[in-house]
Amino acid sequence: MILEPPRSDYGVLKLFINGKWVESSSREYAEVYDPGLGKVIAKVPMATEAEVDEAVEAAYEAFKSWSKLPVPDRLQYIFKMKYAMEERKEIIARANTQNHGKVIRESRGDLRRSIENVEAAISVAYTLAKGEYQQEIAKGVDEVLIREPLGVFAVVSPYNFPVMIPFWFIPYALALGDTLVVKVSSTTPVPMVLVMEALASELPPGVLNVIYSDHKVGEHLVTHPLVEGTAFVGTSNAALRLYELSASKGKRFLGGGSAANYAVVMPDADLERTVHNLRDSKFGNTGQRCLAIQNIVLVGDIYDKFKEQFLNLAKEIRIGYGLDERSEMGPMASRKYRDNVIKMIEEGLKEGAKLALDGRGVRVEEYPDGFYLGPTVLEGVTPDMKVAREEIFGPVANLLRADSLDQAIEWINKNKYHHSASIFTRSGKYAREFLHNVYVGNVGINIGIAAPVGWFPFGGKRLAGVGSHHPQMDAVDFFTDRKVGIVRWF
Amino acid sequence: MILEPPRSDYGVLKLFINGKWVESSSREYAEVYDPGLGKVIAKVPMATEAEVDEAVEAAYEAFKSWSKLPVPDRLQYIFKMKYAMEERKEIIARANTQNHGKVIRESRGDLRRSIENVEAAISVAYTLAKGEYQQEIAKGVDEVLIREPLGVFAVVSPYNFPVMIPFWFIPYALALGDTLVVKVSSTTPVPMVLVMEALASELPPGVLNVIYSDHKVGEHLVTHPLVEGTAFVGTSNAALRLYELSASKGKRFLGGGSAANYAVVMPDADLERTVHNLRDSKFGNTGQRCLAIQNIVLVGDIYDKFKEQFLNLAKEIRIGYGLDERSEMGPMASRKYRDNVIKMIEEGLKEGAKLALDGRGVRVEEYPDGFYLGPTVLEGVTPDMKVAREEIFGPVANLLRADSLDQAIEWINKNKYHHSASIFTRSGKYAREFLHNVYVGNVGINIGIAAPVGWFPFGGKRLAGVGSHHPQMDAVDFFTDRKVGIVRWF
Amino acid sequence: MILEPPRSDYGVLKLFINGKWVESSSREYAEVYDPGLGKVIAKVPMATEAEVDEAVEAAYEAFKSWSKLPVPDRLQYIFKMKYAMEERKEIIARANTQNHGKVIRESRGDLRRSIENVEAAISVAYTLAKGEYQQEIAKGVDEVLIREPLGVFAVVSPYNFPVMIPFWFIPYALALGDTLVVKVSSTTPVPMVLVMEALASELPPGVLNVIYSDHKVGEHLVTHPLVEGTAFVGTSNAALRLYELSASKGKRFLGGGSAANYAVVMPDADLERTVHNLRDSKFGNTGQRCLAIQNIVLVGDIYDKFKEQFLNLAKEIRIGYGLDERSEMGPMASRKYRDNVIKMIEEGLKEGAKLALDGRGVRVEEYPDGFYLGPTVLEGVTPDMKVAREEIFGPVANLLRADSLDQAIEWINKNKYHHSASIFTRSGKYAREFLHNVYVGNVGINIGIAAPVGWFPFGGKRLAGVGSHHPQMDAVDFFTDRKVGIVRWF
Amino acid sequence: MILEPPRSDYGVLKLFINGKWVESSSREYAEVYDPGLGKVIAKVPMATEAEVDEAVEAAYEAFKSWSKLPVPDRLQYIFKMKYAMEERKEIIARANTQNHGKVIRESRGDLRRSIENVEAAISVAYTLAKGEYQQEIAKGVDEVLIREPLGVFAVVSPYNFPVMIPFWFIPYALALGDTLVVKVSSTTPVPMVLVMEALASELPPGVLNVIYSDHKVGEHLVTHPLVEGTAFVGTSNAALRLYELSASKGKRFLGGGSAANYAVVMPDADLERTVHNLRDSKFGNTGQRCLAIQNIVLVGDIYDKFKEQFLNLAKEIRIGYGLDERSEMGPMASRKYRDNVIKMIEEGLKEGAKLALDGRGVRVEEYPDGFYLGPTVLEGVTPDMKVAREEIFGPVANLLRADSLDQAIEWINKNKYHHSASIFTRSGKYAREFLHNVYVGNVGINIGIAAPVGWFPFGGKRLAGVGSHHPQMDAVDFFTDRKVGIVRWF
Repeated sequence: MILEPPRSDYGVLKLFINGKWVESSSREYAEVYDPGLGKVIAKVPMATEAEVDEAVEAAYEAFKSWSKLPVPDRLQYIFKMKYAMEERKEIIARANTQNHGKVIRESRGDLRRSIENVEAAISVAYTLAKGEYQQEIAKGVDEVLIREPLGVFAVVSPYNFPVMIPFWFIPYALALGDTLVVKVSSTTPVPMVLVMEALASELPPGVLNVIYSDHKVGEHLVTHPLVEGTAFVGTSNAALRLYELSASKGKRFLGGGSAANYAVVMPDADLERTVHNLRDSKFGNTGQRCLAIQNIVLVGDIYDKFKEQFLNLAKEIRIGYGLDERSEMGPMASRKYRDNVIKMIEEGLKEGAKLALDGRGVRVEEYPDGFYLGPTVLEGVTPDMKVAREEIFGPVANLLRADSLDQAIEWINKNKYHHSASIFTRSGKYAREFLHNVYVGNVGINIGIAAPVGWFPFGGKRLAGVGSHHPQMDAVDFFTDRKVGIVRWF
Repeated sequence: MILEPPRSDYGVLKLFINGKWVESSSREYAEVYDPGLGKVIAKVPMATEAEVDEAVEAAYEAFKSWSKLPVPDRLQYIFKMKYAMEERKEIIARANTQNHGKVIRESRGDLRRSIENVEAAISVAYTLAKGEYQQEIAKGVDEVLIREPLGVFAVVSPYNFPVMIPFWFIPYALALGDTLVVKVSSTTPVPMVLVMEALASELPPGVLNVIYSDHKVGEHLVTHPLVEGTAFVGTSNAALRLYELSASKGKRFLGGGSAANYAVVMPDADLERTVHNLRDSKFGNTGQRCLAIQNIVLVGDIYDKFKEQFLNLAKEIRIGYGLDERSEMGPMASRKYRDNVIKMIEEGLKEGAKLALDGRGVRVEEYPDGFYLGPTVLEGVTPDMKVAREEIFGPVANLLRADSLDQAIEWINKNKYHHSASIFTRSGKYAREFLHNVYVGNVGINIGIAAPVGWFPFGGKRLAGVGSHHPQMDAVDFFTDRKVGIVRWF
Repeated sequence: MILEPPRSDYGVLKLFINGKWVESSSREYAEVYDPGLGKVIAKVPMATEAEVDEAVEAAYEAFKSWSKLPVPDRLQYIFKMKYAMEERKEIIARANTQNHGKVIRESRGDLRRSIENVEAAISVAYTLAKGEYQQEIAKGVDEVLIREPLGVFAVVSPYNFPVMIPFWFIPYALALGDTLVVKVSSTTPVPMVLVMEALASELPPGVLNVIYSDHKVGEHLVTHPLVEGTAFVGTSNAALRLYELSASKGKRFLGGGSAANYAVVMPDADLERTVHNLRDSKFGNTGQRCLAIQNIVLVGDIYDKFKEQFLNLAKEIRIGYGLDERSEMGPMASRKYRDNVIKMIEEGLKEGAKLALDGRGVRVEEYPDGFYLGPTVLEGVTPDMKVAREEIFGPVANLLRADSLDQAIEWINKNKYHHSASIFTRSGKYAREFLHNVYVGNVGINIGIAAPVGWFPFGGKRLAGVGSHHPQMDAVDFFTDRKVGIVRWF
Repeated sequence: MILEPPRSDYGVLKLFINGKWVESSSREYAEVYDPGLGKVIAKVPMATEAEVDEAVEAAYEAFKSWSKLPVPDRLQYIFKMKYAMEERKEIIARANTQNHGKVIRESRGDLRRSIENVEAAISVAYTLAKGEYQQEIAKGVDEVLIREPLGVFAVVSPYNFPVMIPFWFIPYALALGDTLVVKVSSTTPVPMVLVMEALASELPPGVLNVIYSDHKVGEHLVTHPLVEGTAFVGTSNAALRLYELSASKGKRFLGGGSAANYAVVMPDADLERTVHNLRDSKFGNTGQRCLAIQNIVLVGDIYDKFKEQFLNLAKEIRIGYGLDERSEMGPMASRKYRDNVIKMIEEGLKEGAKLALDGRGVRVEEYPDGFYLGPTVLEGVTPDMKVAREEIFGPVANLLRADSLDQAIEWINKNKYHHSASIFTRSGKYAREFLHNVYVGNVGINIGIAAPVGWFPFGGKRLAGVGSHHPQMDAVDFFTDRKVGIVRWF
C-alpha cells in the first residue's frame, strides 16, 4: 500500500522564530525533493544574518523567564512536547520518508527514538541536574553547588535523521532551562516543519527557533555573541571547523562526525544471524547512518560461506518508494549524495576492489526519477584503500579478510574515524578483548548497529566525536554550568 | 626568625623527562629570582621543540602500561605521592616562598592544598570513575559503559601558585590513568623541581614529565599530535588562544583565566569581621590570586566607617621577606609584575581615582633590592574605569559606592571576567539573591576568598573559565572518555 | 458552589486482584463516611487471609514477566498511568474530598502531588536504577553490578492522604519492576477505588492489587512468605510493630510514623507572613498531616503580637463542607478522630494549658451531622505536657514561650518524634544553626510545611521514620537489590 | 621457615574502651587457642553489661565532637589509620595466623584487604557523602539535603576473618562521623588486639571501642538505647535474631549470613584452570569463608575428567602450621569447628554420599595437637541432601552431576542461602544466562571466589544478606542519614 504524504507541495518554507512562522526575506533558495519520486516538494530559503540575529535574540529574551521556571513547572512543557509528538508521530514519520526517502518503518523508528529523547530529557532534568551541598567544609563554613542553564544554544543538524538528531539535543536543552536556535538541513527540512507545527502552541515563544541557512550564515549563528555553544552532527571536517570557530570565541562545542566502521566476524560466530544483522546494519537507512558497518572483516576460513549468504540476502532486499509499505530499502536522500557514493565505488574499483554485487544499475519501475541505488558489495578490499578509509555513506559494503582478531583490531584502530565497531562471536574472551581494545566510541557484540539507548552516551572518539562531550548522556554537563557558594554566617 | 631556604643557588635547572633529570640543549635561558632579595637563584632553560617531543613520547610510551594497571594498583602510587609530598612539605614550602616571595605561612597553605588534591584524586579515581551497566535494554540485549583514560595530557601552569595549580591536575590525571607533560612557569620553576625530586622515585618513568619553555614551544606542546588535551591556568587571552589552537586539532581544553572580582558590603554586615576578611582577601598572596577581591562595593551609608577601619588594618600589615616568619605580606613575584601593578595604579589615578593609601613607596630595610609593594587603596573608583574592569593582580583595592544590592549585582555581571564575587551581610534574603543572581563561578557569603574545597568545582564563567570543564570537580570527565558496548549473545 | 461527588453511594467496595474487581467473601464490614455530611457512602469489606494470599500470588505471577520487561517498555505503562490519572484527576479529587472531608482545593493539591510521583518514578527508573561496571579490577578481571527488582511488595497506607501516600510508593515500585499489594485505609478507601478504575485497563493484571483489611490480616500480608518488604505510613507504634514482624522474617521495611512538630518564631521574623504561613500549616487538611506544626514557640517579646494576629486569622477561617468551593477548612475525617482530638484538648486543659481559641463548639449549619471541629489554640503550653509531646492530628495549635533559639532547639530535640521543624527568621545565622542542629528529618526555613519535592527524601528520624529508608528518594534502594558479577575469561 | 608470632602468651585480654585498655571485671573467660599447636595463648573475658554500657557511653560522648569535625580534618585520622595498619601489617598478619590457623599468605591477603577498606573509606567519605541542592523548587523556594552521621553503631563480627570483616565497617563508620563499639569473636580475638595497639594513639578516645562478650551481653549491646544500629556478620540464624531485636527498637541492621554456594562447570570450560580455581575456592582459608564453593555441579560428560584432576590437586595440598611458610592449608580455627565439619561429613555419608577423598585422618607430624582436617571430597551428592543444603564451613567439596545449565540454576535458586555462585565456561551466552538468572548476591564467571572489590557491594540475598543494606558499598546509606531543608527568604 502506498501511504499518503502529509502534503504534496509545501511551498516556500518559513522560519520559526519567536513562536511564529516567519517568511524569510532571503532571495536564495534551495530545492527540496521527494527523492523517491525525484520531484521538488518545497523550496527552502537560506536565512539572512539578520534573521539569525532575530532568532538568537528571541531565544535570549525567552531564556530570561524560561530559565527561572521551577523545574517541575518547566517539565510540564516537556511532557506536553511528548504528547504532541506522539499524537502526530505518524504524519511526521510520513513527511520524514517523503523528504528523506527512507522506508516508512525506518521513519517510524526515528520518531520513536525522537520521543524517547523527550522522555529521557524529562528524567534527566528531574534527577540528574541538581546541585550539591556539604556542610562544615571548614569550621562554620558550608559549601553549595548550584547547577544553572547557560542561555542560548545553537543546534546544527544533518540530513540523514531530519528529526531524531535534532532531538538528541532539543528536549534536553529545553528541559534544563536553555533556549535554542536550530539550523536544520536544507536537504531534508520538511519533517521538522511538521514537528514545529505540533509544538508551536505547546512552548512559550522564543524558546525553540528553527532556521535553514548556508554555511556562512551557519557560522554567523555559531559565533553569535549571545550563543553559548553549539551542538553539531555532520562531517568531521565541518565539526573541526565549527569547534575551532567556537573555541576562538570561548564557546562550548559538541560535535558528532564521520565514520568508516568495521565489523569483525570470528570463525565461531552464528553465521546466519550475523549475516542478517550485517545486512540490516549496512543497508538500513540506505546506508546513510553513522553507525552503519562499512567494512566487514572475516577472520579465518568463513569467507566464502559468509559471502554467499550475505550476497543472497542483499539481493533479496526490495528496493522501492519509502511510502510504499512493501519497500525494504528506499532511495538515497538526494541525487548528489547518490553520485558521491557511485564515485566512491568507482574509486574502489580503481584501487583494485572487485564488485561482488553492483547496485548502480538499479531502477524502480514505478519511480523512474527517484535517486535509487541498490545494495553493493565490494571484495578484495584492504584497509588502506580509500573505500575502506573514508566514509561512503551509502549502501556499499566492503569485504576484507584477516588472519586474526588482533590484526582486525589493529586495522580498526588505525582508521582515522573512531566511531563504532562490532564483533560477531560466541566467545566471551574474544568479546572482552574486542570491547576493551578497539579505539571507538560504540561497540557492538553480535550487534551491527551499536546504538546506545536508555541513558548512555552516543560515543565517537577523535574525529568522530569532536570536543569532550557526547550526545545524550552529556546533556546535563553540556547544557548547564555550575556555580559554587561558600557560606559562612556571623 | 629567618628560615633557611633549601639551597641558595639552584644553577641551571634540568628538565624531568622519562624519569630522569635531563640537561636541556637549549641556549636560551631566563633568570629565576628570589624576589624578596631581588637576587638570581637559578637559570631556567627554554626547552626546544625536540625536547618537548621527547617528553610527549615518553609520556605516550608510559601510558601503555600505566593505563592498563588495575585501579587499586595504580592508586598505590598516588598514595606514595601523598606521603612523599608530606615528608617534604616544609622544604618545598620554603622553596615556594624563596622563589615566589609569598610569606611562609601562605606557602605552607599552598602545600596543604596541593596534598589535598592528591587525597581527592585517590578518592575520585576510586569511587567516581566507574562505568555503568544496564541489563535488558531491549529483549536479550545489555549495555555497558566503560570509562577509560585517554593518553597524554599537557598542563600549562602560572607563576602565582607554583605547586598548587599544577596539582589541580597532576594527581587526577595520573590516578585516572593518563600521563602528563607539565610546562611550569619560568618565573617560579624552583618549587616544582623540589616536588619532582620527591616524586622521581615514586612513579614509573615517563608518567609525569616537567619542562619549561617559551610560548611558541608551549604551543608546540599543546598541538602535539600525541597530546589529547591541555589543562591551562593563566590569563584569559592566553586561555582563549590555546583553546582555539586545541580545537583546531580536535583536542580537549580546560582553561582558567583572569579575574577582576567584586565584594559587596551591605549595611547590615558585621563590619569588623568583614574588614578583616577583605584585608586578607586582597592582600593575601600579595594580591596575586585569581580569587582575590579587587573591587569593594559599599552599599548605603557605611562607606566612611568601612574605609577607616580598612585603611587602619591595611597600614598595619607587616611587609617583609617571606622566609622571615614575622612577615605578613611578601614582595611581588617579579620586578616586571610589580611594574605592571604600579602602571595600573597610575592609570587609575589618570581616570580620576584617588589614593586613600599608597603602597608604592614601601621599602623593606633589610631587603632593599626586593620587589616590594605596599597595600594600596584607591577610592572614587567606578565600574567603568580600567582599574576596576581589568585584572590588577597585586595588592591594590578599589573602593566603590553603590545605592543598592541590585546596582552592585549589575556591575558585577557587566564585568568581562566572571570569576568570583562575595557579599557581606547578615540577611538570608540578600545572600540568596546574590548567590542566585551574580554571573560568576565562585560566590562567597561573608567570605572574601571563595575557594571551593572538598569535592567541588573551581568555577569561573566565560573568559574566567574557558571551555566547558572546571578544575578539580571535572577531573573525571576531562581526563577520561567513555565507550559503550551493546551486547547480545546468540 | 457545591460540587457534585462522583457517586452518592458506592455500595460494598470490591477488592482489586489480578486485574479484576473481586467481591470479598468476608462477612466483616466497616462503614465508610462522607464526614462533611456525617453520612455512610460505602461499606468496605475486611479481606480474608485467603484473599490476601490470592492477591500476593497474583502479584508474584505478574512479577515474572513484569520484571523482565526492558525498562523503556515498562516505562510506557507508567506514562499511561500519568495520563490516566491526569484525565480523571478532578473526579478523583472530588471522591477524595467526599470521603476524607478536606476542602476540594486541598484534594486537587493531593492529586497533583500524586501525579508528580508518577512523573518522578519515570525519571528515576530511567536514570538512577542502572548498574555499574569496572574493567580490570585485577589483571584480566572485570566487575559488573546489576540492579534488579525484588518481587512482591506490600504498601500499607493511612487515612489522611488516601491517594497521595500510596502514590509515594506505587509508581516507583512498578517502574522499577516490582509488583504490589496495597492495603488502603478502611476509613477513606473510596478515592483509591476511583484511581484503580482509571488504571485497571492500563496495567497488566496482577501488577497492582488493592485490598482493605483489619490489622491481623494486614500482618498476614506483611509476613507473607512471598512478600519481600513493606512500605508503611501511619502511627509510630504500628510502624515499630510491623518493622519487628518484617525483620523476624528477614524482610525489608520502610515506615513513616507520628509527629508533634515545632515551629520557632524569632523576634526578627516577618510577622505577617509567619502568621499566615503557620495558619496554613496548622489548619490545612484540618490538622491531619504529619508535617503540620503543632507547637509554636515564640522567642523573645513577640508573643502578644503574634497571638493577636494568629487568633484573628484562625477565627476567619471559613469552615464548611469540602465540596463547597467556598470552604477553607473541612471536617475531621471521622467522628472517632474528632473525639480523639477533643480528648487531647481536654488533657491539655487538665495539665494547665489555657484555651485562647476553642473550636469544639463549631457547627456548620447546612451540615449539622458533619464531624466539624474549629481551629483551636492552646496557650501556656510547656514541652513536657502531653498535648505538646504527643501527636494531636487535628486543628489544635499550642503556643509556647522560649528565651532563646538554643532553648527551643533543645525542646525540639527532646520530643520523641523527630519528624519536622520550622524556623521563622530573617537571619542567615539563625537559619543555619537551626537547620544544622535540630534532630528531625524535614526542616522549614520560613516555611510551615516542610514538604520535600523534586527528587528529595521525605525524612523523619527515629520513631517518625522507622527503618533506614525514606519515602520517595530511597525508592531505588528500597525496591531493588544489587548483584555483583566478577568476570574473567580464559 | 617457621615465622615468629608476636607473643607466645597474651594473658587475659583487656577491653579497649574510651581510648584505654581496661581490665574486665568479669569472672567469665573463654580460652583462646593457637589452633595449629592446639595450645592456649590467651584468655578472653566475657564483658559485663555495665562494661558494654561504658563503651557505648564513651562512643556517645566521642560522637559529639567527632561528628562535627569538618570532613577533611576527620579524614586525616583515617589516613593515619592506613599508615598505622601498613606499618604493622606483618605482625598483625602473624597474630591472625597464630590465632585463626590460616596460612600466613592468607593472613597477609586479609590485611591487604583490611587496608583497602580504609583506603575506600577515605574515598567514599570524600566524594559520596555529600548532600544536594536544588534552587527554585517552587517560586522563591530552595531545597537542601544534608547528609549527617547518626551516632553510635555496634559491629558484631565472626571468627573466620578476625580483622578483615570488622574492617568492612570500621573505617567507613568512622570516616562518615559515627563512633563504634565492636564486639569481636571470642575464638579469634587476638588479631584485633594488635590492630588496636596500632590505632590506640591515632584516634580520639571513645571513637572506636572493642569488647568481647557472650550472646546475651551482645544482645544488650545491639539493643542499647544509644546504639543507632548494628552491622553483623555470622550465621543466618543469628542475623535474623539480631535483625528482629534491632527492629523491635526501631534500629538499623545490616547482616551477612550463611552460605552453601554452587559452582557450575560447563562442558566447554577450560578444565585445567577451572580445577585450579575451584581447589583454591574450596580449600583456601581451610574452607572457612562464606564465598567458598561447596557444591560443584558438573554438566554433561566432563565428570570423570574433572574428578580425577580435582582429586589429584586436592591431595597435593600441603597441610601444615600456618606460620610455616611452606604450608598451603592450615588447621580449622577450633576443635569445635572441626568436629562440626566432621559431623557434617558423616551426615552426608548417611544420606548416601560417597567419599572420593577423606581428610578426616590427616595428621601433621610436628603439630600433633593441632586441629587439622584434610581436603575432603564427597560424590554422589544431590541438592536435597543436608550436606548440600546446609553450610559446611570447612574443607569439604561436594560433586554433583547435572544435565543442563537450566537444571543447575534451578538447584542454586532453591538453596535457602542465596550467597554466591560461579560458572565456568567459555561461552558468552551461558555466562549471561547464569549471571542474570541465579538468585544470589555474588556471581563468578570463571572465578571461584566471587569477592567484590573496588567500590562494589558484598551481596547476599535473603538469609545470606539480612536487611536491605550490604557491606562496603552501602556504607554511606547505612552509616548516615539525610535531613531536608526547605528554604524561603522574606
